[in-house]
Amino acid sequence: MTIKRIEELLELYRRTLLEDVVPFWLNNGIDRKHGGILNCLDRDGSVYNTDKAMWLQCRAVWTFSKLYNEVEQRQEWLDAARSGYEFITRHGFDSDGRMFFVVTRDGQPLRKSRYLFTETFGTIACAEYSKASGDQQALRRARETYRLVIDLYRDPGCLTPKVIPETRVTKAHAMPMILLATTQELRKVDDDPLYKAVVDQALYEVLHHFMKPEQKALFETVGPNGELLISPEGRCINPGHAIETSWFLMHEALYRDDHSLLRSALDALQWSLERGWDKEFGGIFYFIDAEGKPLEQLEWDMKLWWPHTEALYALLLAHHLTGDSLYEQWYERVHGWAFTHFPDPQHGEWFGYLHRDGTVSSQLKGSMWKGPFHMPRALLYGWKVLEKMRDTKKS
Amino acid sequence: MTIKRIEELLELYRRTLLEDVVPFWLNNGIDRKHGGILNCLDRDGSVYNTDKAMWLQCRAVWTFSKLYNEVEQRQEWLDAARSGYEFITRHGFDSDGRMFFVVTRDGQPLRKSRYLFTETFGTIACAEYSKASGDQQALRRARETYRLVIDLYRDPGCLTPKVIPETRVTKAHAMPMILLATTQELRKVDDDPLYKAVVDQALYEVLHHFMKPEQKALFETVGPNGELLISPEGRCINPGHAIETSWFLMHEALYRDDHSLLRSALDALQWSLERGWDKEFGGIFYFIDAEGKPLEQLEWDMKLWWPHTEALYALLLAHHLTGDSLYEQWYERVHGWAFTHFPDPQHGEWFGYLHRDGTVSSQLKGSMWKGPFHMPRALLYGWKVLEKMRDTKKS
Repeated sequence: MTIKRIEELLELYRRTLLEDVVPFWLNNGIDRKHGGILNCLDRDGSVYNTDKAMWLQCRAVWTFSKLYNEVEQRQEWLDAARSGYEFITRHGFDSDGRMFFVVTRDGQPLRKSRYLFTETFGTIACAEYSKASGDQQALRRARETYRLVIDLYRDPGCLTPKVIPETRVTKAHAMPMILLATTQELRKVDDDPLYKAVVDQALYEVLHHFMKPEQKALFETVGPNGELLISPEGRCINPGHAIETSWFLMHEALYRDDHSLLRSALDALQWSLERGWDKEFGGIFYFIDAEGKPLEQLEWDMKLWWPHTEALYALLLAHHLTGDSLYEQWYERVHGWAFTHFPDPQHGEWFGYLHRDGTVSSQLKGSMWKGPFHMPRALLYGWKVLEKMRDTKKS
Repeated sequence: MTIKRIEELLELYRRTLLEDVVPFWLNNGIDRKHGGILNCLDRDGSVYNTDKAMWLQCRAVWTFSKLYNEVEQRQEWLDAARSGYEFITRHGFDSDGRMFFVVTRDGQPLRKSRYLFTETFGTIACAEYSKASGDQQALRRARETYRLVIDLYRDPGCLTPKVIPETRVTKAHAMPMILLATTQELRKVDDDPLYKAVVDQALYEVLHHFMKPEQKALFETVGPNGELLISPEGRCINPGHAIETSWFLMHEALYRDDHSLLRSALDALQWSLERGWDKEFGGIFYFIDAEGKPLEQLEWDMKLWWPHTEALYALLLAHHLTGDSLYEQWYERVHGWAFTHFPDPQHGEWFGYLHRDGTVSSQLKGSMWKGPFHMPRALLYGWKVLEKMRDTKKS
């Protein structure tokens, strides 16, 4: 990548983060009455639902804390993080230590999920906020929530399984993936031998059970020992998910200085783009079947914002780490499509949900699933890796 | 409608039912090894998943029994119905009397749903099959399953609610709707004062809690006494669902000879078409927000086969009952769009899932949600009402 292109992208990332996405959420999403964020925002930022997704509360706390820790110590970012942190600690936790999934605007519990994802985002929210605020109670809460996740993951006990386990046992890529990412965040502010053990196990499962070199695919669901399942669930690939995992793996390869792990990460990235890229209309499919058979998900061919933000950062990092032009070419392809179709020049931020052909399907900017997380994270991490690329070129 | 058009449609409905849809399922869907149907069929009829949706087993039994009872006593239809009935009785029921939601090909239980819909389809399957076969045990099973549904509906007890009821109580249009339809089927073969009581309550709820003349809408979710909910869930309209309810109401109006009820049914039909019709691309939206705000469902603007089959029959019936050209005009609009976009001239049957613009999104012919039910039912009922229209014209 030329120095001119690097500097152009660096400026685009910094400006989109600081002058578009972050102000959109600060201006429209902060709940000045009850704390936390109002995550359901229409195209123009108006609120269309006041129920609050707890995992987006957690992700917002992580994002605003991260900006404060890594960009600059702006008071409004710390205030936003604190407001969210206080909302979570007041209303996020059930008496059994687990977290609620959805609460009302004023924090009354509406839903609890059978899955542990809210708790993992609770962990990284508390960890990053503890660094921003110096609040040791937040760090203790991060540790406790993480322990609860690990305990329940290792011995599910009271968690209701989706499928009757006497008949069929399956496991999901999402769990080792999120445990890897959560532990990577927590160990930045804390130290415990448990963290290495959890990451070791997560790496083992991702590399040996979910990644299949023969199929050139990272699958979403396999049997307990990585057996391929002969079903739509077993053939399902979520390219954006696999691409996100690929940069978690790249981070781990850097942390461990492990070239073999880096190679696996790059495989996961390349397989997912080759399988997931829509050769007819461009963009990355939401779900694909490894054998081209029908999928259960009606939204399978939609183009969502987050697989594209994950691909942008993963490809920049892959190009930075290897210098290989393959990743640069893929980067420019994804960048061109994403920056043409997702941005809303009228009201800012990105649309989240496009039809297969790239036209807008939903005007929303925030929902129970879309909040200030994937987009600002990719912009911040992309900006930082672009700085490194520039510095390498200059030196 | 001219006699020529009626006869043309009559022939199209009869032929599509008997020479296209029913053979597609008989040739591809019957499981000759384990009984019941293989409901996950690709475009060409090949099986892409052997797991079986229990409610589609039930719906298939109903359909094949109905064909045997109403069209002609073909042995292959009775055999298909018996195969499904035996699969259901062997593998469909849990020890508590409730039914499983998904089982393996050989009948091992995979999932049980928190909802009671499988049991309502189990009821109509057993009822219609008892008529076809003369099997009194099937009728007893229909009665027992129906009682279980009613008992659990009136006192949910062990059913897990989706939302924590201490915080928010809601109720869904789907329940009175399905109880109305289920009771209408069961009372054709059985007599019990309970049936009138259930239908009375269902009518009261649909007419007074879910239908809102001020908004000209039949809502999917309201408060316990019909309160409008200020949320995407509360604003959500499912036009196909409301249109299906409208013909259940028309049937009830005929049964009770109740003109006021007929008027309400026609209102529900007209409101749903006026709100649900896509003025840009044609076709009926899957979900809409009553105020045009964003919906939670990513697939909101897709065009599914079943809202269109329900609309075709409801509009034919409305036109037959009233003679009003309004319904004829709507009929021709829906017919033109549906018969242009859904049929697969190469392999038969209809595609189930189109993009907003009418292009095919998924090639599947059967899935966990699409089986031999909406399409053959609308074709059979449409054929029968077209016969009445023809006879009225001729007399």
